[in-house]
Amino acid sequence: MRDDFLKQLLERMTLDEKIGQLLQLATPFFKGSSSEGQITGPLEGMGITEETAQHAGSVLGASGAGEIMNIQKRHLEDNRLGIPLLMMSDVVHGYKTIFPVPLAIGCSWDLDLARQSAEIAAREAAVSGIHVTFAPMVDLVRDPRWGRVMETTGEDTYLNGEFAKVQVEGFQGENLSSSLEHVAACVKHFAAYGAVEGGRDYNTVDMSERQLREVYLPAYKAALDAGCEMVMTAFTTVNGIPATGNKELMNDLLRKEWGFEGVVISDWGAVKELIPHGVAADESAAALKAITSSVDIEMMTACYNDHLKELVENGSVQESLIDQSVMRILELKEKLGLFDNPYRGADEEKERELVFSKAHREVARRLAGKSSVLLKNDGILPLNKKQKIALIGPFANNNDVLGPWSWLGSKEDAVTMRQGFLSKVSSDQLIIAEGSGIEAMEEKELQEALEAAEEADILVLALGEKSEMSGEAGSRTNIKLPDAQLKLLEKLARTGKPVVSVLFNGRPLDLTEVKKASDAILEAWYPGSEAGQAVADLLFGDVNPSGKLSMSFPANAGQIPVYYNNYNTGRPKDAPDAQERFVSQYLDSENEPLYPFGFGLSYTSFSYDDIQISSSAMTGNETIQLSVKVTNTGKRFGEEIVQLYVQDLVGEVIRPLKELKGFKRIALDPGVSETVTFELTEEQLRYHHSNLEYASDQGDFIAYIGSNSRDVTGVKFQLI
Amino acid sequence: MRDDFLKQLLERMTLDEKIGQLLQLATPFFKGSSSEGQITGPLEGMGITEETAQHAGSVLGASGAGEIMNIQKRHLEDNRLGIPLLMMSDVVHGYKTIFPVPLAIGCSWDLDLARQSAEIAAREAAVSGIHVTFAPMVDLVRDPRWGRVMETTGEDTYLNGEFAKVQVEGFQGENLSSSLEHVAACVKHFAAYGAVEGGRDYNTVDMSERQLREVYLPAYKAALDAGCEMVMTAFTTVNGIPATGNKELMNDLLRKEWGFEGVVISDWGAVKELIPHGVAADESAAALKAITSSVDIEMMTACYNDHLKELVENGSVQESLIDQSVMRILELKEKLGLFDNPYRGADEEKERELVFSKAHREVARRLAGKSSVLLKNDGILPLNKKQKIALIGPFANNNDVLGPWSWLGSKEDAVTMRQGFLSKVSSDQLIIAEGSGIEAMEEKELQEALEAAEEADILVLALGEKSEMSGEAGSRTNIKLPDAQLKLLEKLARTGKPVVSVLFNGRPLDLTEVKKASDAILEAWYPGSEAGQAVADLLFGDVNPSGKLSMSFPANAGQIPVYYNNYNTGRPKDAPDAQERFVSQYLDSENEPLYPFGFGLSYTSFSYDDIQISSSAMTGNETIQLSVKVTNTGKRFGEEIVQLYVQDLVGEVIRPLKELKGFKRIALDPGVSETVTFELTEEQLRYHHSNLEYASDQGDFIAYIGSNSRDVTGVKFQLI
Repeated sequence: MRDDFLKQLLERMTLDEKIGQLLQLATPFFKGSSSEGQITGPLEGMGITEETAQHAGSVLGASGAGEIMNIQKRHLEDNRLGIPLLMMSDVVHGYKTIFPVPLAIGCSWDLDLARQSAEIAAREAAVSGIHVTFAPMVDLVRDPRWGRVMETTGEDTYLNGEFAKVQVEGFQGENLSSSLEHVAACVKHFAAYGAVEGGRDYNTVDMSERQLREVYLPAYKAALDAGCEMVMTAFTTVNGIPATGNKELMNDLLRKEWGFEGVVISDWGAVKELIPHGVAADESAAALKAITSSVDIEMMTACYNDHLKELVENGSVQESLIDQSVMRILELKEKLGLFDNPYRGADEEKERELVFSKAHREVARRLAGKSSVLLKNDGILPLNKKQKIALIGPFANNNDVLGPWSWLGSKEDAVTMRQGFLSKVSSDQLIIAEGSGIEAMEEKELQEALEAAEEADILVLALGEKSEMSGEAGSRTNIKLPDAQLKLLEKLARTGKPVVSVLFNGRPLDLTEVKKASDAILEAWYPGSEAGQAVADLLFGDVNPSGKLSMSFPANAGQIPVYYNNYNTGRPKDAPDAQERFVSQYLDSENEPLYPFGFGLSYTSFSYDDIQISSSAMTGNETIQLSVKVTNTGKRFGEEIVQLYVQDLVGEVIRPLKELKGFKRIALDPGVSETVTFELTEEQLRYHHSNLEYASDQGDFIAYIGSNSRDVTGVKFQLI
Repeated sequence: MRDDFLKQLLERMTLDEKIGQLLQLATPFFKGSSSEGQITGPLEGMGITEETAQHAGSVLGASGAGEIMNIQKRHLEDNRLGIPLLMMSDVVHGYKTIFPVPLAIGCSWDLDLARQSAEIAAREAAVSGIHVTFAPMVDLVRDPRWGRVMETTGEDTYLNGEFAKVQVEGFQGENLSSSLEHVAACVKHFAAYGAVEGGRDYNTVDMSERQLREVYLPAYKAALDAGCEMVMTAFTTVNGIPATGNKELMNDLLRKEWGFEGVVISDWGAVKELIPHGVAADESAAALKAITSSVDIEMMTACYNDHLKELVENGSVQESLIDQSVMRILELKEKLGLFDNPYRGADEEKERELVFSKAHREVARRLAGKSSVLLKNDGILPLNKKQKIALIGPFANNNDVLGPWSWLGSKEDAVTMRQGFLSKVSSDQLIIAEGSGIEAMEEKELQEALEAAEEADILVLALGEKSEMSGEAGSRTNIKLPDAQLKLLEKLARTGKPVVSVLFNGRPLDLTEVKKASDAILEAWYPGSEAGQAVADLLFGDVNPSGKLSMSFPANAGQIPVYYNNYNTGRPKDAPDAQERFVSQYLDSENEPLYPFGFGLSYTSFSYDDIQISSSAMTGNETIQLSVKVTNTGKRFGEEIVQLYVQDLVGEVIRPLKELKGFKRIALDPGVSETVTFELTEEQLRYHHSNLEYASDQGDFIAYIGSNSRDVTGVKFQLI
């Protein structure tokens, strides 16, 4: 980092030029872009002029080496000081090679493959000219009504933190300055966006600071500890103040307590949204709140551009504050090497060679194979390649399998279920019928499906949500499959033929009816570019399912929120002396989730034996080893995710019934055993006390080992 | 208060005797009770010996002058120092004269009648020997899944506070010492029990301290400001610590900040429940947490009794702390005059005369008439007394109309719908058919109902929940009417005959299907002893419906929580420049409640005209007058609840879209107008800032006046 160079550059900048660096606009605002001047739809209402755009320091959503180089070239021609633009884009679960949606990646529990997927996304993005991706998204979620649950790795603090880390490592590589095939990462959405009330997107968030720190913040911190260069603000509030104007969150916590020195960017329009939130009377007040809350870049609105100068001139904002923000941006540009090579990795030849390459798609296929979760199997999977199969349902021949936030992915190139199946069996073994649309069914469609069923030995139903039913602003009150598909499933189940349901969707669904009507269920999520291929690998047994849920599946929507690491309460339902009535329960429903966190089946089976603990007591600087012998007791090679949970039996505050503290993905041939060992240290037993102190308490704990959060064996130990 | 007498008494008490005062046990533990020694069921597991019981300072759940005098007499014979027992009971919405459930009382918006109902409950209880009632319950609620929503007056901070005040006044009268026909009140459940996660009873509560203070605490404070003598702890947690062991809540806030000097009692078993909560390892630790958190009386467990002595002896608890608690209890006994007359109001003759008297029942009838809410009326109500009416449904002839927490009420004495109808029309005009049970329907029942419908001009369906479907531990995931009743309704609606649905239930229901199938809907709640009479008064037009919802009715359970005083968010759905997709909404559902807070119809109509504001700006010590001319534009006498809401347009934190700040119940003859005036002061504009400071901000506000929280007219004003 050439500090002097940057300092001198800053000194030469006018206030207008500085403020320009703080503005980010979408591609159509820039000369040289293919969409130049196409300011329509939502963009039109932004109140941004062409002149404003010329000042901007960064670009949102550019893609493609040719276009990005064009924009940069035209910009540098106009820019007095030759300060290059930062090119930022949402490369969330892949650039053109689309990986499974993050919630599915969460279900892989495969940190290495997740890291590889981020590396590949970064490589494709970098050679296409992108410098920064708005990922990873690490918001912890407990409400499947929220559409953005598909964007996160799930409901667990620890698991999300582990994925945050490897994603940042994958995007950024070891050294961002020297590797042109990596991009800077931007962790989002700071903080606790995933706790929107009622699962309604953009809605209010409210929780105790203790819960915020204990449950929601660690994954962001994990990303920053891994070196994440940027942070994006949440649209939502923290303690009554929108994150984008929240000094306590941004200055006191992020900057001072955590020491984050990188760039903070607002989410799309979030600075101006301080006005509808009702904490700023006008754009000037919004700009003042955001800049004094350490928000360096304003995305897609012009409150900074139109008002910061005046705020500096009237003394409301010190120019040194602007300088700080500008310097953080210049530093990132310098770290990315843009002053030496403003085009950085952009390389049209490499782009053609690497983007959506066979090698990349192969990784997408592997990750999809590990992300799908086998929820039920009454012995009918894997499919027998000699059977006659009816592939029925709105996803039987549908390429809407990339999921939300895959804007650069090409649906046309995605492998459909039909294509996947035809790679396994001949076309005369396969009968295809849609049976219904996503949300509506015509009688004719149903008849065709019933006829297809008639001819087949087994029915594979490909069901799900179209991708816009989840994702940003994709909140739903009903988390069942649409009625049309449930009807299709029920009619087909009545034929008596065995039914396999394969689900393509972006949230945990209420699968009560699906479970009843199906002999097997594979939760495939949105598997990405290789969707049909990966699912066919699994259904035909060429790959053995090994994914495990990273988010609980509720028994019904009335049970929301349901998550594994909840509390015992004062009147637990399952206590030995529990009364029938006066316990914490719903009277009219299951009280457990339909499928718990950590759950997933395999075509083989595993036994857990001989759980050993190295010592039943440990001091603060000792370590306990826990081991378990896991045996593949079935007839196929398979992978198993062995899970370690801990319960702190008595705390200064209430403590969860279980907390994930470790996991290992192991691969075993039939009949083979492996002893899996976990280490537990005092640090893993710490939690936030009521005064927010992060410390452990001496006392009794239980370590649980098992194949999911429900089916575990516990061993007591003490911290002394 | 004879301080010296109490001090001397305390000095004479042994530590055992002091600790005994802190114990409360149920009637069967006491000599002289009719249930003496009947320690069965849940009581058996309490671990309480006969000896323990002899020490107890108060009795839970005794009733009846004879029995209570017996218990007191026997106790005083045994008690070395002659310290009388305090007799406490849950007299929640009536003693034997049962008033509508509190949620229904909330819908009356009638503070005078609510006060009268508390007075009557107190009078009946007092002459029956009771000294303290565990009421009012003022927990603010936003989740209709929670069964205890029926126990509170609703979702609004201000409205709950107003009801808290008049209930305390009604129970306690002006001077508890001099009036033998009043009882001490015990506000519950401190604090924020109504915010249990997922609406599952006893579940965890978590929120920011700002929200706690702004939304949840004011109603408890209102009760204490009205002089409420006692406070009961919540079963649940506040900031991770169960209320019953929460020093910050109890010592710092309740005792020090609010200066509460009265008795704090745990809820049933809540001290011992600190163990399953996981904040106490054993009973001794539970006792230590509770006593050091200012919990004076332990209800129905013996942690204090079995461990406090040892804790004092080993120095963990100072005896002075025990003394403080004992003194608070002795002071209450002295305030109630028990040292002079341990039998206080208990009077078998008065009991016979007053309890369930005609005069009392008349008030119950009036209050029930104001508590029912007319939700829909397509011109078919009131009923024509000359029509032939089929009264159908599981509540057609059902006395389960008292609702939960009416344990002393007699169902046998409750007026059923059938009885109420027969007070209005002759029996040959009325056909009765059950049609279905609450949760199941036999084909025969349906046939009978269809035959009844055939003969009738109009169908009145009496539908609802049996009382144990709500109340404590009555949480449900499904808030629709049971399927059997929906089926009955749909079958009857198909006959084409006009359908009036009358609902008996304890929570806001999802009435989507009911609304579709009914021409009129009357939400009667559980109306109490005079149920059928009051409902008949309303249906036949002898009383004009005037109740308004004090809790929003969701459009479906997936929309929970839905409440009127929510926030705008950064992307409100109804903003003029709102995008179609990227706004805060559910994609698949109504986003508004089915029936909003404050909503209720009448058989007449009211116009709101000529809204005037005395000034468009006010300083901190000025007052603004707002007035509106309300006219009865229909043909019947009617009452209307005129509502005032305020919105603070810009705050330091986000501010609700509307907050109720005043209301007036007015009565108007047809064609008559009344000008209703509200006053607004700076104090009413205060709120809790992010640093918890309670203050107003200068700036713009809107005052809204209207007939419910949705249908209002706004006037801008400024605080300068």
